[in-house]
Amino acid sequence: MAFSPLVDELVESLRCLPGVGQKTAQRMAFHLLERGRSGGSRLSDALSNAMTGVRRCERCQNFADTELCGICENPQRTNGTICVVESPSDLLAIEQAGDYRGGYFVLMGHLSPIDGVGPEEIGIERLLDRIRQEGVSELILATNPTVEGEATAHYIADRLDGQGILITRLAHGIPVGGELGYVDGFTLTHAFRGRKPLIE
Amino acid sequence: MAFSPLVDELVESLRCLPGVGQKTAQRMAFHLLERGRSGGSRLSDALSNAMTGVRRCERCQNFADTELCGICENPQRTNGTICVVESPSDLLAIEQAGDYRGGYFVLMGHLSPIDGVGPEEIGIERLLDRIRQEGVSELILATNPTVEGEATAHYIADRLDGQGILITRLAHGIPVGGELGYVDGFTLTHAFRGRKPLIE
Repeated sequence: MAFSPLVDELVESLRCLPGVGQKTAQRMAFHLLERGRSGGSRLSDALSNAMTGVRRCERCQNFADTELCGICENPQRTNGTICVVESPSDLLAIEQAGDYRGGYFVLMGHLSPIDGVGPEEIGIERLLDRIRQEGVSELILATNPTVEGEATAHYIADRLDGQGILITRLAHGIPVGGELGYVDGFTLTHAFRGRKPLIE
Repeated sequence: MAFSPLVDELVESLRCLPGVGQKTAQRMAFHLLERGRSGGSRLSDALSNAMTGVRRCERCQNFADTELCGICENPQRTNGTICVVESPSDLLAIEQAGDYRGGYFVLMGHLSPIDGVGPEEIGIERLLDRIRQEGVSELILATNPTVEGEATAHYIADRLDGQGILITRLAHGIPVGGELGYVDGFTLTHAFRGRKPLIE
């Protein structure tokens, strides 16, 4: 063992971070020890507080410090619209876009029978209960445009069939600022099919 | 603020790690909260212990838990040879190669007047004191083959001029397992100049 047990343990622990292998963990540990001790102590406190204190919002399953998350606590955002996303980072992306002002439901995953993830694991019964109780008018299925994301969206839509709720899916099309020459064929097909009159 | 203060503080704190920006910090925080809480708690403890407990070895400047590091405490490795390296990761690479059995001196940097790093900052006086006290026979200057590393090596060599100590520098040449076609011209020139008879 070339280093002290404390340094070895720090390197080993840093490997629990996603995308961090032996070399990166070493680089991080040495950086903190050489030039970032105050940052390291702050990170230690933040980790310990978050690992013990962060729970799931009882209404939308998002991360929260208290029973309800900030969005669910806001009465202006319980307006009969729920946006279903796969993960907190999807929610964050939508929040940063800044336009949507309704509520959320965070699945924390998608249906994936091969990995043993069924409707129960991602809280779909909880979502259906909430829709029943709150009287939702629109459900936006913002799961990812992948095979699993599409399957999850269709499953939820099937379960709500005939209940008079407007169920929508995000539009596919050309990204704003993108160049046509770099857009793939599937996206272009969607963009053509979803074209709109310039003057409405 | 879309998330709880605890999550926001965790994301912000993770950014003190080298190479970690906002998006990576978010991904790390969500990963720990979703699937790695025990790893996160372990990392918190390891960080806190290392940030307060790790100091510099009084003999070689390497990271250590006690007054002397493991290598300096080992009497078999105080054999009159000191290998000077720029950083603990260089030391680790040499240790992992497994062949060198002498002592070390870790500069924790290199001479760089433009950044205000002079001989005092990298502990060169300490190295010279140690050489005087211990009676070193060989000093291996294993600083990096960069402009600053070469300058640091030459500075140390100049300071020890005429004291009868063998001062060496690591050999340049073709990496073992490398292909000649991919080796740069400078390295090839060094490899030619340093060629050796096959039967010695």
